[in-house]
Amino acid sequence: MQLLNNRSAQLRAPGKRVSRARVAVVRAAKTADGPRVAIVGVTGAVGQEFLTVLKERNFPYSDLKLLASARSAGQKQEFEGHTYTVQELTENSFKDVDIALFSAGGSISKKFGPVAVKDGAIVVDNSSAYRMTEGVPLVIPEVNPEAMSHIKVGKGGAIIANPNCSTIIALMAVTPLHRLATVKRMCVSTYQAASGAGAAAMEELRQQTRDVLDGKPAQPKIFPLQYAFNLFSHNSGMDVELGYNEEEMKLVKETRKIWSFPSVRITATCVRVPVMRAHAESINLEFENDISEAAALEALAAFPGVSIINDRQNNRFPTPLDATTKDNVFVGRVRRDISRDDNKGLDLFVCGDQIKKGAALNAVQIAELLLK
Amino acid sequence: MQLLNNRSAQLRAPGKRVSRARVAVVRAAKTADGPRVAIVGVTGAVGQEFLTVLKERNFPYSDLKLLASARSAGQKQEFEGHTYTVQELTENSFKDVDIALFSAGGSISKKFGPVAVKDGAIVVDNSSAYRMTEGVPLVIPEVNPEAMSHIKVGKGGAIIANPNCSTIIALMAVTPLHRLATVKRMCVSTYQAASGAGAAAMEELRQQTRDVLDGKPAQPKIFPLQYAFNLFSHNSGMDVELGYNEEEMKLVKETRKIWSFPSVRITATCVRVPVMRAHAESINLEFENDISEAAALEALAAFPGVSIINDRQNNRFPTPLDATTKDNVFVGRVRRDISRDDNKGLDLFVCGDQIKKGAALNAVQIAELLLK
Repeated sequence: MQLLNNRSAQLRAPGKRVSRARVAVVRAAKTADGPRVAIVGVTGAVGQEFLTVLKERNFPYSDLKLLASARSAGQKQEFEGHTYTVQELTENSFKDVDIALFSAGGSISKKFGPVAVKDGAIVVDNSSAYRMTEGVPLVIPEVNPEAMSHIKVGKGGAIIANPNCSTIIALMAVTPLHRLATVKRMCVSTYQAASGAGAAAMEELRQQTRDVLDGKPAQPKIFPLQYAFNLFSHNSGMDVELGYNEEEMKLVKETRKIWSFPSVRITATCVRVPVMRAHAESINLEFENDISEAAALEALAAFPGVSIINDRQNNRFPTPLDATTKDNVFVGRVRRDISRDDNKGLDLFVCGDQIKKGAALNAVQIAELLLK
Repeated sequence: MQLLNNRSAQLRAPGKRVSRARVAVVRAAKTADGPRVAIVGVTGAVGQEFLTVLKERNFPYSDLKLLASARSAGQKQEFEGHTYTVQELTENSFKDVDIALFSAGGSISKKFGPVAVKDGAIVVDNSSAYRMTEGVPLVIPEVNPEAMSHIKVGKGGAIIANPNCSTIIALMAVTPLHRLATVKRMCVSTYQAASGAGAAAMEELRQQTRDVLDGKPAQPKIFPLQYAFNLFSHNSGMDVELGYNEEEMKLVKETRKIWSFPSVRITATCVRVPVMRAHAESINLEFENDISEAAALEALAAFPGVSIINDRQNNRFPTPLDATTKDNVFVGRVRRDISRDDNKGLDLFVCGDQIKKGAALNAVQIAELLLK
């Protein structure tokens, strides 16, 4: 395989300086019997984060193929001491791939997902294309790993969907509480970062902010409205009859599927705020059964992937910056809902890195589950 | 009176160029039988906005006295073509004052409010000092003007409290719906601007943002955490037992007082976002009776001081920038709550200028009510 050969050649190249640490990482990650991995959409914000996460978690791939559109093909990508050439995504891209991490938008997933499956690859898809498709598992590894337990590497192609970022971040916090007392109704208001709309949206926020500080007019391109020092209703498509946007409906529908709990009641208001890459969510919960603050905090502390920042004395609770580039989802403001007379209500505030646990990390965790 | 004389002298000053428009405004606002007005805390963000609003609304004062701390005394203040000298606030400041607009913090209101009342002035207090004091009307003129109907200029001193900014902005939107179907429970998540913490907080947001864009570390001074491209739980004092902060409890307690409805159920999560001077609020409402979207929009359209931006086709809803420096509160995202089977739930999104309707405008409207 071309990329494998490239890499081996580089590892052997005389005179090339490779640090000990780097070699150690490469040796550990590069395992002869590991899966052959492809990244589709490697030049995007999430695509780049796939690489970061594969490296951080020492993912044992035996081969790595970096795919993108014809426009990006030929670009060089440094990774773990090697220079990869980004290849154009084509119908033939998946002949020698075991796991394909897709993050190139829904239409690419719809077109090339089935191609990869036909060639026997397991697609972990970060787009919304297959999330609600019957038979496609929609997985947060800490929450519902059992949904994908029938899928194995080398036993035929399949698609596993990565949930939407705001769903993942909400459910990392709410699932341990749901297991404790059964969520009846969830009312969510989000504070969503630029990264959800990609790297260019993050740059738009930076550029607009610079312009506004310099007294120049903001120039909206990706988003229809000024983003600098402003916020607006989430820019996803709106169901004109219902009045909910797609981001909100994802939270509703994906939660029902992930929890296998179609009757759970959810309303959400999704808002884009001028923050770079971590989402925050204010969540009001109504439970079937009693739940105390202490029990909730205990369940959250015991849940993998959750960190608690809940210091009332010092008014210190999660912020997007706490979560930025972090694996864990941060939970705080955990308190009994004072609008209720009973002990069946809780409020909380959650922050999670949109690119990481909201996208790339969750997908790589799914890939790791496939290897177990 | 010194200031009156100063101003008359300037109007007559030979060679001073005064535009016709300026003269017209001054003549209309300056009415011989109008009340004598004092502004306490004139150098602050809200104090400055008092001046803007008095001018915009052509408030018919016969005299204007600008008061601040000893530190600011002596500063010059241009207003309606005249140069005022800011005077130090003392025990003798209110001898010749009919209406005193206070916005210099709770401790100043507690110390000098009673002094002004003793001298026969009506204090319109923007601090939280007297909001929950029995016998002190807490007024949003569009909502509960009747609460202050017993107070008249020249009939003895009194205090009228201006509600907290987030309460005013929420209730401008929710009151017409409450009148229609009776609010049973309200769940609010706020997106609050820098201005609520004063002009220095707005400057801190600007400076930090500049620093972060330049790759320098943010230097938090007023707020304990980085504000640039970040957000955090509201920085007001926390009730360590309940887990709610003061800003949230104001929304709960003030709403009950303004509506004379002590049993209304409210939970709130108050969050500071990197926006300059308009608050946003995501509000989920549960009603005693059925309420349709159409009826809600009709009631909102008919309510004074409310503008609707609710364009689902174009995904256009209120933003803080829409509300910035505007008198009206902007309401949108009005929709039936899909987490309920009945027609007793609504979601909405509200934006209002924190300095204007959230503070200075509401206070001046109270002063206008006094003149009716």
